[in-house]
Amino acid sequence: MTMNVAAKAVVLLSGGLDSATVLAMARERGYECYALSFDYGQRHRSELQAAARVAAAGGAHEHRVIKLDLTGWGGSALTDAHIAVPTAPTTGIPVTYVPARNTIFLSLALAWAETLGAPNIFAGMNAVDYSGYPDCRPDYVAAFQAMARLATRAGVEGVPLTIHTPIIDMSKADIVREGTRLGVDYALTVSCYQADTDGKACGICDSCRLRSEGFRAADVPDPTRYLRS
Amino acid sequence: MTMNVAAKAVVLLSGGLDSATVLAMARERGYECYALSFDYGQRHRSELQAAARVAAAGGAHEHRVIKLDLTGWGGSALTDAHIAVPTAPTTGIPVTYVPARNTIFLSLALAWAETLGAPNIFAGMNAVDYSGYPDCRPDYVAAFQAMARLATRAGVEGVPLTIHTPIIDMSKADIVREGTRLGVDYALTVSCYQADTDGKACGICDSCRLRSEGFRAADVPDPTRYLRS
Repeated sequence: MTMNVAAKAVVLLSGGLDSATVLAMARERGYECYALSFDYGQRHRSELQAAARVAAAGGAHEHRVIKLDLTGWGGSALTDAHIAVPTAPTTGIPVTYVPARNTIFLSLALAWAETLGAPNIFAGMNAVDYSGYPDCRPDYVAAFQAMARLATRAGVEGVPLTIHTPIIDMSKADIVREGTRLGVDYALTVSCYQADTDGKACGICDSCRLRSEGFRAADVPDPTRYLRS
Repeated sequence: MTMNVAAKAVVLLSGGLDSATVLAMARERGYECYALSFDYGQRHRSELQAAARVAAAGGAHEHRVIKLDLTGWGGSALTDAHIAVPTAPTTGIPVTYVPARNTIFLSLALAWAETLGAPNIFAGMNAVDYSGYPDCRPDYVAAFQAMARLATRAGVEGVPLTIHTPIIDMSKADIVREGTRLGVDYALTVSCYQADTDGKACGICDSCRLRSEGFRAADVPDPTRYLRS
């Protein structure tokens, strides 16, 4: 007699709209999900409380937060208090880009995946809305997967790791529609780059703008709590 | 008039024999070196004091230590107190392997390199003595470099990053000879997997064994301070 054991997956969970949707998609595909968040000195600390709420509501088997101090390096508006968060659309790579952030996050997910014996990592990269971020593009993800398969004991001896980026080609409206279909409670999520300690959103940063446009385009009521209404 | 500005390089520095040699090699090649160490819950904490001494003696422009808690995941004798450090040679991937460690370290080096505008990372991977570690092999390093060039702003807009692993094909004896030629003071370094708080080496773990054999084969006096003599 054989038993069906759910395959394990590490899911990167920021507490924002995208990764909450990715968690729901991974759960729908039958994975046992291990949610991973990072306390990396981000300005929007209420993100982490949101991640804990989303992990619980989204049926994650476990949720861990790794503390990692990237503030000393500066270089991004998200971790360096001297660089302002932009409130108007910009061209090129935005100042909110954190150097090598997805590489660092995926590397730590890889370590946990290897410890768990999980041959899957889910990540919420999106190449449509965030085309300015080099580490959100499909060829970057493919290169990371190729590297990861050479990096680990599992890659050498066992099941090759797969990096799943199910929303990479979706518009924000598509993501909102898919998450709504899967029952994601977006009121639990925080996307704003400079949310207050209670998780209220500024309504004017790039991330708020993309998010509210997504709800509007999807014709789904926006449950975001804004500081200014 | 143009000035010759030394190219910047981030150098991964563990405090052991290998990375001390790599720092000396990078300096000899004319790089301005930014040494990077990790406080990741390793048993052999005196490594970090050794790294600080080696960075200063080796002429590093700056030395940073990133705190990163990997102890919660276990899975390695170096970070999990429940797994004994082996004192006899083993086959296959050793239990001292830390899941995805080099990937995590290189990712954080990549972030600092990008912030500094440094198109070089030096790392002390060695495929000869540590052939059991999947993330010490040349094809892994090449895959990481390919990924890194897609991951970063510099890779997209500027000088492509190069990962230098100058000792990857050298025997421990060759490394000792090269470091000795370059004036590395190996008495400052700690390689032992279970060194005491003062940096004295056990003399019996894999790392101690490889190190002492390296000095013997190189016909260089071994300056290691051992707990048992």
